[in-house]
Amino acid sequence: MTELQKPVSSTAKLLSQYSRPFIRNAWYVVGWSSEIGEELLTRRILGEPLVFYRTQAGEAVALVDVCPHKLAPMHLGRRIGDNLQCGYHGLEFDQRGGCVHNPQGNGQIPPHARLKSYPLVERYGAAWIWMGDPALLDDSRIPDFSHIDDPERKTMAGHHMVQGNYMLMVENLMDLGHVMFLHAQSAGAGGIVMTENKMGVDGETVFDSRLYGDVPKPAAFAPYYPEGARVDFWTDIRWDAPSLIRNHAGSSPAGTGRDGPKVDQFGSHFLTPETQDTTHYFYAHSRNYGIDDPACDDFYRKWQRTALKEEDSMVAEAIQRHIPEAEALGVEMVVLSTDRSGIRVNQILDRMAAAEAEEA
Amino acid sequence: MTELQKPVSSTAKLLSQYSRPFIRNAWYVVGWSSEIGEELLTRRILGEPLVFYRTQAGEAVALVDVCPHKLAPMHLGRRIGDNLQCGYHGLEFDQRGGCVHNPQGNGQIPPHARLKSYPLVERYGAAWIWMGDPALLDDSRIPDFSHIDDPERKTMAGHHMVQGNYMLMVENLMDLGHVMFLHAQSAGAGGIVMTENKMGVDGETVFDSRLYGDVPKPAAFAPYYPEGARVDFWTDIRWDAPSLIRNHAGSSPAGTGRDGPKVDQFGSHFLTPETQDTTHYFYAHSRNYGIDDPACDDFYRKWQRTALKEEDSMVAEAIQRHIPEAEALGVEMVVLSTDRSGIRVNQILDRMAAAEAEEA
Amino acid sequence: MTELQKPVSSTAKLLSQYSRPFIRNAWYVVGWSSEIGEELLTRRILGEPLVFYRTQAGEAVALVDVCPHKLAPMHLGRRIGDNLQCGYHGLEFDQRGGCVHNPQGNGQIPPHARLKSYPLVERYGAAWIWMGDPALLDDSRIPDFSHIDDPERKTMAGHHMVQGNYMLMVENLMDLGHVMFLHAQSAGAGGIVMTENKMGVDGETVFDSRLYGDVPKPAAFAPYYPEGARVDFWTDIRWDAPSLIRNHAGSSPAGTGRDGPKVDQFGSHFLTPETQDTTHYFYAHSRNYGIDDPACDDFYRKWQRTALKEEDSMVAEAIQRHIPEAEALGVEMVVLSTDRSGIRVNQILDRMAAAEAEEA
Repeated sequence: MTELQKPVSSTAKLLSQYSRPFIRNAWYVVGWSSEIGEELLTRRILGEPLVFYRTQAGEAVALVDVCPHKLAPMHLGRRIGDNLQCGYHGLEFDQRGGCVHNPQGNGQIPPHARLKSYPLVERYGAAWIWMGDPALLDDSRIPDFSHIDDPERKTMAGHHMVQGNYMLMVENLMDLGHVMFLHAQSAGAGGIVMTENKMGVDGETVFDSRLYGDVPKPAAFAPYYPEGARVDFWTDIRWDAPSLIRNHAGSSPAGTGRDGPKVDQFGSHFLTPETQDTTHYFYAHSRNYGIDDPACDDFYRKWQRTALKEEDSMVAEAIQRHIPEAEALGVEMVVLSTDRSGIRVNQILDRMAAAEAEEA
Repeated sequence: MTELQKPVSSTAKLLSQYSRPFIRNAWYVVGWSSEIGEELLTRRILGEPLVFYRTQAGEAVALVDVCPHKLAPMHLGRRIGDNLQCGYHGLEFDQRGGCVHNPQGNGQIPPHARLKSYPLVERYGAAWIWMGDPALLDDSRIPDFSHIDDPERKTMAGHHMVQGNYMLMVENLMDLGHVMFLHAQSAGAGGIVMTENKMGVDGETVFDSRLYGDVPKPAAFAPYYPEGARVDFWTDIRWDAPSLIRNHAGSSPAGTGRDGPKVDQFGSHFLTPETQDTTHYFYAHSRNYGIDDPACDDFYRKWQRTALKEEDSMVAEAIQRHIPEAEALGVEMVVLSTDRSGIRVNQILDRMAAAEAEEA
Repeated sequence: MTELQKPVSSTAKLLSQYSRPFIRNAWYVVGWSSEIGEELLTRRILGEPLVFYRTQAGEAVALVDVCPHKLAPMHLGRRIGDNLQCGYHGLEFDQRGGCVHNPQGNGQIPPHARLKSYPLVERYGAAWIWMGDPALLDDSRIPDFSHIDDPERKTMAGHHMVQGNYMLMVENLMDLGHVMFLHAQSAGAGGIVMTENKMGVDGETVFDSRLYGDVPKPAAFAPYYPEGARVDFWTDIRWDAPSLIRNHAGSSPAGTGRDGPKVDQFGSHFLTPETQDTTHYFYAHSRNYGIDDPACDDFYRKWQRTALKEEDSMVAEAIQRHIPEAEALGVEMVVLSTDRSGIRVNQILDRMAAAEAEEA
């Protein structure tokens, strides 16, 4: 892209990317598997209040958290074996949402009484939901995040809420240009000079790759690095629509590149819309070094809190507050070269949203 | 009613019952009489901010809490004898709301200067307001709650706010089917099997009665019950439009029924809309047993806090949050036999609201 | 004005004065000069989020607090000399808002990249902004408040937010009729009898003057007054559109009037809209007596907290909550003689708003 000669988009168009209708034909993470157990867990996903639990056989279940009788939240009720009993009048639903018991009156079950149910699949330590067209359900479309449960890696996972549209976080993660400013302190990234990125697109997947040949060891990796003062270093980002991001960063002896004996780490970032303006942010960091080193654990735990929450999410929340007023303020938005992958991501999502709107 | 063969109503219709225009030609409780005194009390009733006080002769007064000069709340002012002086510029109004003194300029009183005033009647320990057509004012239409100040009974009264439409609480109180679930712990109601109810309608009053013949003593009453292990037990609910409920529960020796020598209690429940989405809940419990027993006082004080606030009001508030989104969520609401009286109540209120709309 | 014979305005018209479009061709105070320094200060003015700082040469700068790249607040960034660097991606803007550095990609600066900038003038200890038509910029139109930095006076300045439209405070300050009621306690004003005011209008300035001849010394001034038990006393208010008020109150030996040897004080009141419904209130009190008396400082510090915040602003906030519902409540507003100057002020502002709307 020639640097910014022509603005690709007007302010209105750029802003519309933060209020695009939810993409429904997609897999979203609703929680880490460890969060779903015997207790009822309630979480709003794509604007819908859901309740989650695990059956005695170990299956994770997702039902709409609203009783069709009086609209009481189902998570105020209780488990009866694998069924869910409403805490208000005792209507009982099975794990597929069918009403199986009415303790009131003659006990006849109202014909339409049911809780909407959504398929959940557990993979890579997370529970994935499909809220789209049932005819398109296909769990082979969940992208590969197998590094999360790779026994040769140490993975540290977490979760927090962001008071902003999920695209603010997706764009943030697709754009490394912010690292040396927003994370100057937390990442020790002040001195990094960015190399040109290579972008690739494959259907609903976008790749953004950078290779730094023969550079000094990045400070964060230093203690665990190959011998020698200089290394090759890369950052390969993969986005799968609409909001699954894998960031593979690694280092090898100078001159050996991505195929050399390497220390590396995978960042996994799952951004699930809670509402148009709020987002569940699930993240994991999986490293192949310092596996048993508590100091290394501490380092990445602190990084997640500082960089992902206090810096990235904080700025996303501040931006969200400006979105509804930006046009009235007369702000003429501009794009930079670092937005290149984010622009492509948005083009794909516009196309997907249009296709879903047409089918609906 | 045949159990649920035909849904009586669509979801939209059922939801509309929680946003029905206020019924104005009706008596509402604005407070316990003990709350109205020399001090100015402010409370919003049917969406209108009101100020209450008691004259030197003991009359309770209700005026709109908004000065017609600059809109300052009148409750920030002060009493001048039986008059009310605005705290901002000193306009003074008598207890009927007429402006009687202007301390500004030449002192002439603006011709239209007045506070709207509403009739208050005190009865059964409470202050009742009439905000409807003055031509229809008739305090003989206040239903009988004389048990509240019956000297042979011990009455415990209270008040709290509910962040939900008043009909959520009315339906809750007309429906005993929830007791064994929502109040399973607080009421020791786990083991109760419901009997069929008998419903009656008389104008704008609905009755819902249940008699349990020859059953074991309910635990809550046991220490105060007639001798013998088994009793007759009844629960007779009376609703007067739009939101006055009396629940008469009693017990007599098995075989003697409602006419036997009885221990009994009246629950009084006054639900007064503050706004469409918030409700003043005034309640009293009047018993003819354990009159001087502080443990019995404690029991019912705790019951009021637990069952009426932490359970009933809590679930009403949770439902309120689902009302605006239920249709978008695609919830198809169902009705159960326990809703029978509530449905009748809603039919009467629909008719009353339509009649008031026609007159307006 | 004949006292209230004819209501000058309907309720709807009176209420519209609290939601009038902002007057843009006017000077507003954004802060005391001492608040603007090396650190970035963010404040919303006329609905626009702005960031303020002072250059190394001492110039106060006002820029829109929204980066045109991704809408991040500029106040999360940092100073680079006299420039401002966005904390997200490092775009750098000079003190006039022009983008001067892009650290991303090839470094080309997007042609439209800029922060809107507004002229600031510092005078009388305050920073004044011009957000109107640049062609009309003329700092000679800032009214005289030179008493604030008069070395022969002691000035005590402060600032707080009011959760109400700025006109509520303007009307409050133009109307002395409220003093003996709202400030009965804080002002020791209980016994004051008001004299008739003289009103004058000169373009976009309104004067409201009162002279009390040969009266007992007001308690607040007593220790610092001319000798003798009786004084002449005056209160001269000057309003400059849209929201700059000077209140000159003084006292001289009985019979000598405003030209006598006097103790006097100037109240300066700058009401700057933050939004339609919230206001920055900057105030200063400048006296020519008790200059070095800490007890006198304490007295006026307490007066500012009590009278300006706990009384005036509190009642303005209470009124603001009634504004959106007053018509639905059926309140028929009335005007009093004490509103006379406020009515004139509103007429001028209506005319100015209409003129600005025509030009736009």
